[in-house]
Amino acid sequence: VVTPSPTLQLVLDLVGVFVFALSGALVGVRQKLDIFGVIVLSVAAGLGGGLLRDMLLGATPPPALADGRHIAVTVLAGGIAFVLYGPLTGLARSVRVGLGTALRAVDAAGLGVFTVAGTSKALAYGLGPVGALVLGVLTGVGGGVVRDVLAGQVPVVLQRELYAVPALAGAGIVVLAVRADRYGPAVVAGAAVFVFRLVAVVRDWHAPRALS
Amino acid sequence: VVTPSPTLQLVLDLVGVFVFALSGALVGVRQKLDIFGVIVLSVAAGLGGGLLRDMLLGATPPPALADGRHIAVTVLAGGIAFVLYGPLTGLARSVRVGLGTALRAVDAAGLGVFTVAGTSKALAYGLGPVGALVLGVLTGVGGGVVRDVLAGQVPVVLQRELYAVPALAGAGIVVLAVRADRYGPAVVAGAAVFVFRLVAVVRDWHAPRALS
Amino acid sequence: VVTPSPTLQLVLDLVGVFVFALSGALVGVRQKLDIFGVIVLSVAAGLGGGLLRDMLLGATPPPALADGRHIAVTVLAGGIAFVLYGPLTGLARSVRVGLGTALRAVDAAGLGVFTVAGTSKALAYGLGPVGALVLGVLTGVGGGVVRDVLAGQVPVVLQRELYAVPALAGAGIVVLAVRADRYGPAVVAGAAVFVFRLVAVVRDWHAPRALS
Repeated sequence: VVTPSPTLQLVLDLVGVFVFALSGALVGVRQKLDIFGVIVLSVAAGLGGGLLRDMLLGATPPPALADGRHIAVTVLAGGIAFVLYGPLTGLARSVRVGLGTALRAVDAAGLGVFTVAGTSKALAYGLGPVGALVLGVLTGVGGGVVRDVLAGQVPVVLQRELYAVPALAGAGIVVLAVRADRYGPAVVAGAAVFVFRLVAVVRDWHAPRALS
Repeated sequence: VVTPSPTLQLVLDLVGVFVFALSGALVGVRQKLDIFGVIVLSVAAGLGGGLLRDMLLGATPPPALADGRHIAVTVLAGGIAFVLYGPLTGLARSVRVGLGTALRAVDAAGLGVFTVAGTSKALAYGLGPVGALVLGVLTGVGGGVVRDVLAGQVPVVLQRELYAVPALAGAGIVVLAVRADRYGPAVVAGAAVFVFRLVAVVRDWHAPRALS
Repeated sequence: VVTPSPTLQLVLDLVGVFVFALSGALVGVRQKLDIFGVIVLSVAAGLGGGLLRDMLLGATPPPALADGRHIAVTVLAGGIAFVLYGPLTGLARSVRVGLGTALRAVDAAGLGVFTVAGTSKALAYGLGPVGALVLGVLTGVGGGVVRDVLAGQVPVVLQRELYAVPALAGAGIVVLAVRADRYGPAVVAGAAVFVFRLVAVVRDWHAPRALS
C-alpha cells in the first residue's frame, strides 16, 4: 500500500481538528461554560478522535501533540466560537436555522474529514480493509463522543438518526480507492460523508428499531 | 514466563468479544436505539476492554483491528440481538428470568473470559503479578464501563453488587497458575469468575459501605 | 533536553497517585458505593491521568502497571478513606470546612503534582513546548475527569471555576525551567498550581461566559 502524501494528511487533520473543536466550543457555550471550559471542550472534541486513532495505531507521540499547530487550531476555534457566539446565533436565526442544526452541520464536516483521515492512516499502518473501516469510523466519531460524554449528553452516534452510516460509507470509498492506488477519491469520500450526514439531518432520516 | 498458546488467546478473545458485544446490543435495544446505535454499542462493548489492554501494553495495532474476525463477531452479535430480541425476551419471561438478570449473565461470561485473557496477556508482556492482576481486571471490566458510560448509565462495576471481586479472584488464579507454568487452570479461572459473579447476582450479595 | 531524575519522577508520581486516589475514594464514599466501588474509583482516579499520558507518549507498559507500588498506593488511599471517612468528616466539620472544599483541596494537590510530572515527562520524550504544556494539563486533569465521568458527574474541569488555568500556569513554569536546564523549579511549579487552585476555590474565582 502506498502512503498518502504527508501534506494531504496534515491538511485533512487540521481542517478536521478545527471543525470538531468548533463543535465542542458550541456545545460548551450552550451549556453556559466559562471561557476555559469552552476551550477544554474545544481541545477534547478537536483532538479526541485523532489521539484515539494514534494510540490504537501506536503512532506515538501523536503528531497532534508533537507539533503545536493542531493545538493552536483548537484554541483558535474555541476563541472564535466564544467571541462570535452572539452574532452567529443571530445570523442563524435570521436565516431560520436552529442552533442544533448549525451544530450538526459543523459536526458533519468534522465527521467527513476525520473518517477519511483515519481510514487512510490505518491503511498506511498496514491494517486490513475491515480494520481500517472500523478505525476510520472510530476516528470520525471519537471527538464527538468525547465531547458529548464530557458534557453529560447522550453521544450523537447513539441518537436515533443516521450518523455512523455516512462515516461507514465514506470509509468504504477510501478503502476501495486506496486499493486502486488512487488518493484523489479521498476528498470525494470526505465530501460524501458530509453531504450524506447533512441530508440525513435535514430530512430526519431514521433507521429501524427492534421489535419488542 | 512462557507465553500462552496463540490459539487459546484468540479463542478466548473471540468468545469474550461475542458475549460483551451481545451485552452491549441488549443495552442498546432496551434503550430503543436503532439498528446502527445497537451495533455501535456492540462494537464498543465487545472491543473496549481488549483495545484498552492492548493500548496499555503497547500491543499496537491491536489484533482486534488488525484482523477482521473480532469486528465480524461484534457485528454478528449486534445483529442477532436486534433480530431475536422479541423471541428472546419472550423465552426469558416464560422461564421467569428478568431481562436485567439475563443481561447480567451474558456480561458475567464476558467478565470471566476477558479477565483471564487480559491477565495472561499482561504476564506474557512481562508485567509483574500485581500489574497483571490490575490489567486483567481492567480488561474484564473495560468493555462494560465503555458500554455503560456511552449509554449514560452508572457503570456496573460501581453498582452496589459484587463485580470487581470475582474478576480479581479469577485474575489471581491465572497469576498463580502461570507462575507454576500451567495454562489449563486459566479455563477454570474464567469459569470461576462467571459462576462467582452469577451467584453474586442471584443471591444479591453486597459489600459493606463506609460509616458516616 | 536533559531528562529529570528517575527518583524525582517516581516520587512525584506516587504522591500524585495517592492524593488523586484519595479524591476518588471520597467521591465514592459520598455516593454510598461499597468498599469495592470505592477502591475502583480510587484506582481510576489515581492511575487515570498517568496511564493516559503514558499511552499518548508510547511509554508502554506504563510504570504504574509494571511495578506494584503505584497500585498499592491507590488501594491504600481507598482503604484509608473508607475506614476514616466518619472521623475525618467530623474533624472537617469541627473546623468548619465543608466536605466539598476538603475534596477540592485534595484534588488540587493531585492537579499540581501530576501537571508537573506530565509536563516534564513529555519534554523528556521530546515533545515541543506547546505539546508538553497540553500533555501536562491532560495528565493533571485526566484522573479527575475519569473519576467524575465514572461517577456520573460533570467533570470538575468543565465546572465554572478556575481549574485548567492553574494547571496551565504550572505547566508553563516547568517548560521554562526545563528549557533552562533546571529541575528545582518543578517543585515550585507544583506548589504554585496547588496554591493557585486552592485560592480560586476559597475566593470562588470565576472566568467570563459568552454573551448570548
